Amino acid sequence: MKFTFLPKGFNFYNLFDEQANVAVEAVVLFNEIVRGGTVDAASLAQMDALEHRGDQITHDIIERLNKTFITPFDREDIYRLATELDDVVDMMNTIVGRLRVYKLTGVNKNLVEFATVIEQSVRQVVLAVKGLRKANNFKAIMESCVEVNRLENVGDTMRDESLADLFETESNAIAVIKWKEIYQDAETVLDVCEDVANVVESILLKQA
Amino acid sequence: MKFTFLPKGFNFYNLFDEQANVAVEAVVLFNEIVRGGTVDAASLAQMDALEHRGDQITHDIIERLNKTFITPFDREDIYRLATELDDVVDMMNTIVGRLRVYKLTGVNKNLVEFATVIEQSVRQVVLAVKGLRKANNFKAIMESCVEVNRLENVGDTMRDESLADLFETESNAIAVIKWKEIYQDAETVLDVCEDVANVVESILLKQA
Amino acid sequence: MKFTFLPKGFNFYNLFDEQANVAVEAVVLFNEIVRGGTVDAASLAQMDALEHRGDQITHDIIERLNKTFITPFDREDIYRLATELDDVVDMMNTIVGRLRVYKLTGVNKNLVEFATVIEQSVRQVVLAVKGLRKANNFKAIMESCVEVNRLENVGDTMRDESLADLFETESNAIAVIKWKEIYQDAETVLDVCEDVANVVESILLKQA
Repeated sequence: MKFTFLPKGFNFYNLFDEQANVAVEAVVLFNEIVRGGTVDAASLAQMDALEHRGDQITHDIIERLNKTFITPFDREDIYRLATELDDVVDMMNTIVGRLRVYKLTGVNKNLVEFATVIEQSVRQVVLAVKGLRKANNFKAIMESCVEVNRLENVGDTMRDESLADLFETESNAIAVIKWKEIYQDAETVLDVCEDVANVVESILLKQA
Repeated sequence: MKFTFLPKGFNFYNLFDEQANVAVEAVVLFNEIVRGGTVDAASLAQMDALEHRGDQITHDIIERLNKTFITPFDREDIYRLATELDDVVDMMNTIVGRLRVYKLTGVNKNLVEFATVIEQSVRQVVLAVKGLRKANNFKAIMESCVEVNRLENVGDTMRDESLADLFETESNAIAVIKWKEIYQDAETVLDVCEDVANVVESILLKQA
Repeated sequence: MKFTFLPKGFNFYNLFDEQANVAVEAVVLFNEIVRGGTVDAASLAQMDALEHRGDQITHDIIERLNKTFITPFDREDIYRLATELDDVVDMMNTIVGRLRVYKLTGVNKNLVEFATVIEQSVRQVVLAVKGLRKANNFKAIMESCVEVNRLENVGDTMRDESLADLFETESNAIAVIKWKEIYQDAETVLDVCEDVANVVESILLKQA
């Protein structure tokens, strides 16, 4: 009997791989949009499509989870992993939607920095999630999780500096309202990545 | 032995029906207030009373849940159903409280539209929750859940349009702060309705 | 066999006591900062250190939880207790960080009132959590939980009055943005205290 991290019976790994691929596509698109300095209708539609595909995979995972006999505790982990990973894509979609609705155009250097860190974090999250497939990945997965935690701290500092900068330099209160929300959302993406890493770590530690 | 969706032993259906009735009363009152364009002390007190009754029923469900032997997984569903359904009423109460504290008066046509959609969604949620009582309601319950999901998407668009409208037409930043929060809260009611529908769907699919 | 509220095998009580002690230290520091009217680098570092220690204890509890065989339902309670108690410290740290980033100085009488109520609530939460160690504390624990719930309602009123006051007296929209967030955060600390009390109550009622 081969040792595995996730319950047998149904192959959850394939679905989590798909979900992880959607997250990578979304973060690449997110970086393009942020660096382009404008959200056109095409990129908005692309991001929406990714969000929708992410939702469907999550729904699929939960439906199969409901049909598979496994212990309740493992079940809760899988449920959390699927929903939190989906939230990563949702949050990026939310930011893009807000940039569009708030008519925020022009390259914002703070947001570009955030996008870079978010991409790093999402890629580590994806490594960790995909790593679950093989039991001998323990050390590499743990390293990815530690890195995601480190990037969340980096994000906290970036948000604080971006907000301090905003309050210092922007006298238009309505612009402050808009950008403050965007910066806080950007930091939230990193929080959600950390949540995913925490679930992965939790799954790993139970087997150790 | 009759087939049922929720565990036997204690009749959870009656309590969920009571909670659903509170949600309907709250959404009707919410519409009256929003269409009236002002939150007087009497309607504020009425909404508070409904919120309080909702809390008590939720508390009652959780207390009985803690005393009833059922499998952990079903337990988690009942816990989620009770707390999420309670959150629907809480969010409407929050909005009404804010309208009052922020001294927002006058009929706001965007909020009226939201209230209409919120009422449609709450009524579908109530149909779905009450439907759990009978196993042969499967198809009708699923249709209600699909409709709640559709209305959540409608709400996303309404929020985006309301915010775009607000940023376009309102130059007073303090008014922007107030209405932006109200519109986002209104959309959150629909999110929470969707959460309830997702729990109901999950309960159903496990039995299918 | 002695009756206990939490599962045997590993002594969770000691870790929860440590976590509770961190919460007390944090709330005392929080009051000092708020009453001092300025966040200097030293107190910011102190609060950060407490938040970090809280995180480590939570991590420790979850790691041990993953290694201990207990029923899934109890497990979920311990998980919630640890994470919610940690959130109490996190929220106070968030407020202090914001005061600093937003350069808000000077004693704010509304925030001082909040800090007083928050300290009362955290102390009751700590009594409740520490009380779990002995089964004959049932009545005292329940009284603490009721008090935490009462203080959460006090906090709702305080937030509403603080916001009404803010909108009435502050014409600078950027100052409104900053203080509105601080007041809402302060109320959130009391919400999270209530969440902890609800988990404690839930643990108790299962044994009653």
